[in-house]
Amino acid sequence: MKTYKKKTFPLTKIRRFLEPGPIVLVSSAHKGQQNVMTLGWHMMLGFDPALVGCYIWDENYSYSLIRRSKECVINVPTVDLVNTVIEIGNHHAPDVDKFEKFGLTAVEGTKVGAPLIAECFANFECKLVDTSQINRYGLFIFEVVKSHIATSPRYPKTIHYRGDGVFMVSGKNVSYRSRFKAVNL
Amino acid sequence: MKTYKKKTFPLTKIRRFLEPGPIVLVSSAHKGQQNVMTLGWHMMLGFDPALVGCYIWDENYSYSLIRRSKECVINVPTVDLVNTVIEIGNHHAPDVDKFEKFGLTAVEGTKVGAPLIAECFANFECKLVDTSQINRYGLFIFEVVKSHIATSPRYPKTIHYRGDGVFMVSGKNVSYRSRFKAVNL
Repeated sequence: MKTYKKKTFPLTKIRRFLEPGPIVLVSSAHKGQQNVMTLGWHMMLGFDPALVGCYIWDENYSYSLIRRSKECVINVPTVDLVNTVIEIGNHHAPDVDKFEKFGLTAVEGTKVGAPLIAECFANFECKLVDTSQINRYGLFIFEVVKSHIATSPRYPKTIHYRGDGVFMVSGKNVSYRSRFKAVNL
Repeated sequence: MKTYKKKTFPLTKIRRFLEPGPIVLVSSAHKGQQNVMTLGWHMMLGFDPALVGCYIWDENYSYSLIRRSKECVINVPTVDLVNTVIEIGNHHAPDVDKFEKFGLTAVEGTKVGAPLIAECFANFECKLVDTSQINRYGLFIFEVVKSHIATSPRYPKTIHYRGDGVFMVSGKNVSYRSRFKAVNL
């Protein structure tokens, strides 16, 4: 599978990739175990620091890896990985090593112990900064501490889940910049 | 502007419209004042009850209307409303009545006092059920108590904000249902 040449990207602008609402792959590691899960319920919660909220079901194996290590990587896959995304959701760790089974390349992070997925267009290294809403809502609040974004294309074709097996594939990107008041950009 | 014939829709399936991450218009009312704001930071937080988390900046006029009334309507606009969406973001209440200024039709809700926007494809009547994360994160947690969805098309063309004036327009919808394990649908 294809991997990307990447560059770092300003953390205050990562909404470009997350606010449109793509399915993401969340990778984690703790004490020699690693895993990857699919995740569709996430939102931006701040620019600086760059905060992201993620809903993680407590039945997921990743839940305990992330809760214990207090770290993860949010990886943004493109539409060419749709079958891999579905298969990751169909399989449950620790029965399988999903990196090995699905031919994903684990790349070492710079600020967290969780692995980056080389085949994903974007990787966001995250630290768990607020655990107070985990028990009640399954809501993990992360600070993104490092980004790695493919140098091209500028806007990847991402997949956005609707439930019932249906994905919306991202379409064209249009700038309306001239119509915005500068303060609102 | 176009309005839609709508039907109610199962609350447990509203992820179909919100999980893909569209920009939404949030309408609110309190003591004779009403307003509408654009919002891109939201996430599903539960199926049953249907919970949605929304980030609302405390500088928005809507912030106090929603906090006081403990209600709102989340409306999903389609790409034909993109200029209206931008103009709503460019203007600030209470200086202008945005419904009047932008030719939006306020329709009475069935379970909340906030108005539905007739020109939006989908309307979700919401009750504010958790205020505990508002002060720290601007995070309002709503329960959706009633949905109104256009009878057609099945999948509207929505707009997804990337910052810097750029919107991604939703593309094709593809069912991969047969590849999912039933428990994961």
